[in-house]
Amino acid sequence: MPTEIERKFLLKDESWRNHAGKGTHLRQGYLCLDKGRVVRVRTKETAAFLTIKGERQGISASEFEYPLPLADAEELLRDICVQPVIEKIRYEIVHEGFTWEVDEFFGENEGLFIAEVELESEEQRPPHPPWVGAEVSDDRRYSNASLVTHPYREWKERKKHP
Amino acid sequence: MPTEIERKFLLKDESWRNHAGKGTHLRQGYLCLDKGRVVRVRTKETAAFLTIKGERQGISASEFEYPLPLADAEELLRDICVQPVIEKIRYEIVHEGFTWEVDEFFGENEGLFIAEVELESEEQRPPHPPWVGAEVSDDRRYSNASLVTHPYREWKERKKHP
Repeated sequence: MPTEIERKFLLKDESWRNHAGKGTHLRQGYLCLDKGRVVRVRTKETAAFLTIKGERQGISASEFEYPLPLADAEELLRDICVQPVIEKIRYEIVHEGFTWEVDEFFGENEGLFIAEVELESEEQRPPHPPWVGAEVSDDRRYSNASLVTHPYREWKERKKHP
Repeated sequence: MPTEIERKFLLKDESWRNHAGKGTHLRQGYLCLDKGRVVRVRTKETAAFLTIKGERQGISASEFEYPLPLADAEELLRDICVQPVIEKIRYEIVHEGFTWEVDEFFGENEGLFIAEVELESEEQRPPHPPWVGAEVSDDRRYSNASLVTHPYREWKERKKHP
């Protein structure tokens, strides 16, 4: 079973922008937001994917991903997914051999920035770039699935972001 | 958007078996059982599919279907789908130009038989084979999704089946 292991962080400042390229526009919605299973539809510019994730165990989750026709994905996002759909620009930044993804959110989650690093094992400890802040891997509120039902704009306590 | 229009019936007697071939073994489970969206994983002998259905409007529902690798489908059915998984043998019977599917259920739904006919429009009225009984298109209990959470064996009132 393919497994996704990732750690998630807030950002300290805007200095990551100096290392980021153009970014990729992502739109993603959920067909399923259960604790035991997540089904996600995502468009990534002109490509589209359906992703199924099993229950998260710590920072790992089994993950299945399949390509989708873009027109189907757009219809699924518009008509069938739980609303609102998440919109973000994802920037990839390589730091000492590890690829960090910085997500800048829009719409209902505007003002939120999250950095993620994908790992090959739970024990890996990638060196942090200077702009990486507090870890939020265990804070469910920062999962994209949770950001649909409780978008960042509605949070009472918002950590200060750059 | 592809739309599925179907009517669903109980069976009067066992005479349908005289017209049925060998049948196809189906196993299906659900990643999502919401009112607004259903995500189904199905194996059909050695083939497998993922199907997404939008909210049912009367007897119609939008439907998207994609092939899946069989090994992925088996893993999804075993580890990620809501339990129990539905097991049935599907028999196809052509009657006056219309194809009827008779599902014989096993496991938690043993004893249940359902006949379905797929239509091209809601107005179509296919002639009923003599073994077709009462219509249950509007009875949600007979939807496969409902048969996961409320399997036939647990029903208090069971209509007499052949």
